[in-house]
Amino acid sequence: MGSTWGNHLKISIFGESHGEGIGIVIDGFPAGFECDMELIRRELSRRAPGQSGLATGRREEDEPVILSGLLNSATTGAPIAIMIKNLDTRSKDYEQLRSIPRPGHSDYTGQVRYRGYNDIRGGGHFSGRLTAPLTFVGALCKNFLKKHHNIEIGSHIYRIGEVFDSPFDLTLTDRELLAQLQMKEIPVLDEKTAEEIKETVINVKSDLDSIGGVIECAVVGAEPGIGSPMFHNVESRIASMLYSVPAVKGVEFGLGFALAGTRGSKANDCYTLKDGSVRTKTNYNGGIAGGITTGMPIVVRAVFKPTPSIGREQKTLNLVTGKEENLWIRGRHDPCIALRAPAVVEASVAIVMMDLYLEAYGYDAK
Amino acid sequence: MGSTWGNHLKISIFGESHGEGIGIVIDGFPAGFECDMELIRRELSRRAPGQSGLATGRREEDEPVILSGLLNSATTGAPIAIMIKNLDTRSKDYEQLRSIPRPGHSDYTGQVRYRGYNDIRGGGHFSGRLTAPLTFVGALCKNFLKKHHNIEIGSHIYRIGEVFDSPFDLTLTDRELLAQLQMKEIPVLDEKTAEEIKETVINVKSDLDSIGGVIECAVVGAEPGIGSPMFHNVESRIASMLYSVPAVKGVEFGLGFALAGTRGSKANDCYTLKDGSVRTKTNYNGGIAGGITTGMPIVVRAVFKPTPSIGREQKTLNLVTGKEENLWIRGRHDPCIALRAPAVVEASVAIVMMDLYLEAYGYDAK
Amino acid sequence: MGSTWGNHLKISIFGESHGEGIGIVIDGFPAGFECDMELIRRELSRRAPGQSGLATGRREEDEPVILSGLLNSATTGAPIAIMIKNLDTRSKDYEQLRSIPRPGHSDYTGQVRYRGYNDIRGGGHFSGRLTAPLTFVGALCKNFLKKHHNIEIGSHIYRIGEVFDSPFDLTLTDRELLAQLQMKEIPVLDEKTAEEIKETVINVKSDLDSIGGVIECAVVGAEPGIGSPMFHNVESRIASMLYSVPAVKGVEFGLGFALAGTRGSKANDCYTLKDGSVRTKTNYNGGIAGGITTGMPIVVRAVFKPTPSIGREQKTLNLVTGKEENLWIRGRHDPCIALRAPAVVEASVAIVMMDLYLEAYGYDAK
Amino acid sequence: MGSTWGNHLKISIFGESHGEGIGIVIDGFPAGFECDMELIRRELSRRAPGQSGLATGRREEDEPVILSGLLNSATTGAPIAIMIKNLDTRSKDYEQLRSIPRPGHSDYTGQVRYRGYNDIRGGGHFSGRLTAPLTFVGALCKNFLKKHHNIEIGSHIYRIGEVFDSPFDLTLTDRELLAQLQMKEIPVLDEKTAEEIKETVINVKSDLDSIGGVIECAVVGAEPGIGSPMFHNVESRIASMLYSVPAVKGVEFGLGFALAGTRGSKANDCYTLKDGSVRTKTNYNGGIAGGITTGMPIVVRAVFKPTPSIGREQKTLNLVTGKEENLWIRGRHDPCIALRAPAVVEASVAIVMMDLYLEAYGYDAK
Repeated sequence: MGSTWGNHLKISIFGESHGEGIGIVIDGFPAGFECDMELIRRELSRRAPGQSGLATGRREEDEPVILSGLLNSATTGAPIAIMIKNLDTRSKDYEQLRSIPRPGHSDYTGQVRYRGYNDIRGGGHFSGRLTAPLTFVGALCKNFLKKHHNIEIGSHIYRIGEVFDSPFDLTLTDRELLAQLQMKEIPVLDEKTAEEIKETVINVKSDLDSIGGVIECAVVGAEPGIGSPMFHNVESRIASMLYSVPAVKGVEFGLGFALAGTRGSKANDCYTLKDGSVRTKTNYNGGIAGGITTGMPIVVRAVFKPTPSIGREQKTLNLVTGKEENLWIRGRHDPCIALRAPAVVEASVAIVMMDLYLEAYGYDAK
Repeated sequence: MGSTWGNHLKISIFGESHGEGIGIVIDGFPAGFECDMELIRRELSRRAPGQSGLATGRREEDEPVILSGLLNSATTGAPIAIMIKNLDTRSKDYEQLRSIPRPGHSDYTGQVRYRGYNDIRGGGHFSGRLTAPLTFVGALCKNFLKKHHNIEIGSHIYRIGEVFDSPFDLTLTDRELLAQLQMKEIPVLDEKTAEEIKETVINVKSDLDSIGGVIECAVVGAEPGIGSPMFHNVESRIASMLYSVPAVKGVEFGLGFALAGTRGSKANDCYTLKDGSVRTKTNYNGGIAGGITTGMPIVVRAVFKPTPSIGREQKTLNLVTGKEENLWIRGRHDPCIALRAPAVVEASVAIVMMDLYLEAYGYDAK
Repeated sequence: MGSTWGNHLKISIFGESHGEGIGIVIDGFPAGFECDMELIRRELSRRAPGQSGLATGRREEDEPVILSGLLNSATTGAPIAIMIKNLDTRSKDYEQLRSIPRPGHSDYTGQVRYRGYNDIRGGGHFSGRLTAPLTFVGALCKNFLKKHHNIEIGSHIYRIGEVFDSPFDLTLTDRELLAQLQMKEIPVLDEKTAEEIKETVINVKSDLDSIGGVIECAVVGAEPGIGSPMFHNVESRIASMLYSVPAVKGVEFGLGFALAGTRGSKANDCYTLKDGSVRTKTNYNGGIAGGITTGMPIVVRAVFKPTPSIGREQKTLNLVTGKEENLWIRGRHDPCIALRAPAVVEASVAIVMMDLYLEAYGYDAK
Repeated sequence: MGSTWGNHLKISIFGESHGEGIGIVIDGFPAGFECDMELIRRELSRRAPGQSGLATGRREEDEPVILSGLLNSATTGAPIAIMIKNLDTRSKDYEQLRSIPRPGHSDYTGQVRYRGYNDIRGGGHFSGRLTAPLTFVGALCKNFLKKHHNIEIGSHIYRIGEVFDSPFDLTLTDRELLAQLQMKEIPVLDEKTAEEIKETVINVKSDLDSIGGVIECAVVGAEPGIGSPMFHNVESRIASMLYSVPAVKGVEFGLGFALAGTRGSKANDCYTLKDGSVRTKTNYNGGIAGGITTGMPIVVRAVFKPTPSIGREQKTLNLVTGKEENLWIRGRHDPCIALRAPAVVEASVAIVMMDLYLEAYGYDAK
């Protein structure tokens, strides 16, 4: 029951890493929206491994086939279903993993949960590849929110290993900055960080190892008063969606965990008037107070753990023999999954924002 | 639409800080469970301000009145409704806040969202006081999970300001340790930390200021194979509930944000046999892989921001005059809300675990 | 998990026939609505047994106590919780029913479902008394829909035993007619039917028996284009809510079951212009086509079975002895529950319409 | 937001009558179930128009393509996605319907709801063709429930026009009877009825007209104690699903609308022991009391309106000219959609039963 989400925009994701393909059904998207398929493809290619040598060698076109819900390139109001075919699969790489589940991956938990019937090839339905359909939906939502509500959603790589980019200015209003980040191969605020990141990842890769990272995402233009208190507040919903992305192990808003060491006299965002609008002078709360948008940028960070599939020797259990043995994972894997995460994080946030706007404004979210 | 939650266990919370009272309806709790009302009262009193002088001066008995769902102290299977009356309210403290919304609080966002009709007294429905009914449900779930599944849920204060307690050993199995933490006024692992925390909070209070903190919570005894991939995975659900607690601005599992600086060769939890059961040697994933429990302890941390209501002068906007002015918040407030949070964090986690067990095992969660 | 409902307006009902009372939490109702409490009380009294001698002798004031969500008689946007206390209970009437479950009632199924822990007094949570809080919510929604969307919802008793009232003209537009029906003790279109109904019920009562009936409800003023295809279409949602009312065993729209004997050339409602608006000349589809409102009146009928609690001798099983024996149900019961059903049917329909308008228009349903 | 359904089994339907195809995603189906694809194909072919000349001339193979969720013909626990391609479409038939919406169909309401962007070809997403994926899911559920819970679900045509079949004996226990009905081209209890039905439909067809009908469905073998009171009771859930089937305008259980003319002394189903099990002597409540199964057969009837697409002249509005004009619908249509409905009704009921068993028993519904 885990692959269906939503209150107003409902999405139902399907597929496996090494099956026919992956896809999604999107229910509740407003009718009459002209999808910019180029923009959607661009977002999908931001998530795709790319040619940089910093990612998995698996090459997928990730061309979304529209199964329903579009007519003459406009949404009809009926569910939008898409499918992305799997083309470059090498399933023999995964045969042994039934008996020796990969550490840090879903192999073992998936087997217990589904009594051994789960498709274990490439992680099956647990694969990071499932973020491609999520990126499709998110790109559609980003496209809509920008056109109808002048909302821009962008992100940068805030940290990889011990390399840190500058953080966002929490009070940023520069939509153009966010738009430009989306065009970069390695989206960072400080240009020099990009090189350091590349170096780090190359080192990690040559060690047959992997490394984690943090993505920082900002939403500029969300109006105040969106969301609700308690269980469906903006933070709950964004966090819930971000944690659906495989490898995410932490989510924080505004100052986040640093608030533990901060006094109220600093952390409180005092109000002021700016160009006739109510704004806060600082934005340590990340654009959300009482679970509801303040009108300031929403700023959220998500940490991605290092890819669990590594080539290095790992001593782990063989479930069949009951003995520990050395495992070397072959297959083609990303040394740093966080590098490909910005489009996915933006998509996740965009889906939630779309759902919130549908809740606030009804069928057409206008 | 924000105050109703759940898939299998459904809860619907109501009430305001300065209204008649606060309460909750719990739908789907198994029939025939003998509630230990003493245990529930103890959990409620852990959340209550206490006599230490470290918390708000507001004194509430927090005695839950059972409105339905119990007969001869056993659950009947029908919805359990409870109410906690508000006794010690001083609403005149809040009159001016319509025009001068408190920084960092829901006053402004609530007004925008509800077009000025929200009950602003004491934060109304946004108040931290709403965590009392949540604690009631959580205590009920903890009680059930312990009795029927030998699951123990406990927590400690990991950080207040610059004072850090030792973190949990991520592979802990000691249920007794968790049980004992629940009996402490200031639950910490290192005794000396308690004194340092008190000192910090007293200092902050004398400065008419507030301070944030981090609670670390562990679940020992959850079996492997609970949860689902994608949107309703264990992390998504726990994070979503924790973010429903006012003041939470970050949630992380296992190594959490530190995974950004960790290599896969370390972060991966390799499997082994222990007493005939599959276990991991380390637990950097915090008991969850692929969104599903591994059978290792679930370890989660949540950061609480400093209480936004502080006595210090704050220069902020008067919405009526359009001018900034100095605000001194009177009323009775906690200098460190995190001190009262352990019971609430445990309750939040317990509610999610209960929901997951109902999903896995059906009506009776057995 | 059965007592919580809703997508946009969420309601969570609680209470038992012979417990402390009954109540409901309403989440998602727009802020700033001034409730007409007199109107709500009138609706509750329409559902109450009345003084006619045609209903149960149990006398309840059914005075709703507001627990939350209202301030200065306007909704605040926070959940509205109400409770109606049980005052006139005589629980000793029900003692024997654990071993001899009443035929046609929930006594047996409730015991199996809740393993004997259900509150069996007066039917517990299964009691028809639970329709009082439902009527409260429905009255609130009717009030809102009338004020903001000029929607009138009314009903009449279409059939009791072999007495038939005239059916509604399916193309009716007369809001006043619907309003007047709400003021009648026995709401019928043909005055003489009222007397025949009384006679029928008196006869049935003197036979210590009970009788069924049909309520026909109409919604005038719903605009076209509300609802969605497939699972959440208007008929599905209204039917789902009506079947939640104890004793309902059938629901039909427009011509309903008579459509089985009707040809398409008659059943099709052809379009025309009326006062510049698109209307249908007939309305055999009951105001709904493709699951979406047409702008014509929504007409729905629900059948209520005869009250299962009757004084006549019934030969049924004693679960303890395993022998059949004669049962005479004492207690105070309605000879014809359908007589009290019009307010409940209207309330059920109103709740669904409110949910649909929130979906269509967002937070404020305007 | 209308095409996604479910609490435990979640389904998300997509597609249009004249688009690429139609399909469905099924989330939450237990892992390790070996699908009998032959049985599923048989159910799909029962729904398909057949060769009898009594149905639409459109010929579709309705071959379901599995997109995900199956491996070596067993379910993996991941979402099962299927697609059925549209092969025999003639979309030019539908061009004029934007300006002259077909009476009784969704053309007008769909245009209002989706502001003219709906795919109107063949009814688009509103088409009866969407019942094919529903039948797929239902067949899967029937298969599961029979294998694991010995539940048989069958139906017959109870009425077409003025031809009535014998009704089910409400206390039936004969699984074989239900299984045999599934093998018949025109499933009726009295053989002679089949001929009368054919005659009726041929007459109607030669008149370029259509006719309605009633399907009666029975579930034998459901255990007592399944379901919940109030909003998610068995009747609400079954009715809600049946109303999702296009053309259904009425649903009733047990004696249904006839209960209006029935006294309690007859309608009450008294308990008895049969082969050591608690049973009722009669079953006028249709196997459900208090919203929960009694262990007796669940008997439900649904009325299907006459197909709105008819060849006869209809005088209706041209939205463009604002004038009424004569419409003759060409295209290929069923004179009696009810003939093809039995498999769909059984599927709808099976899906709900599956959802209820998952709720009662957890992940594996065992």
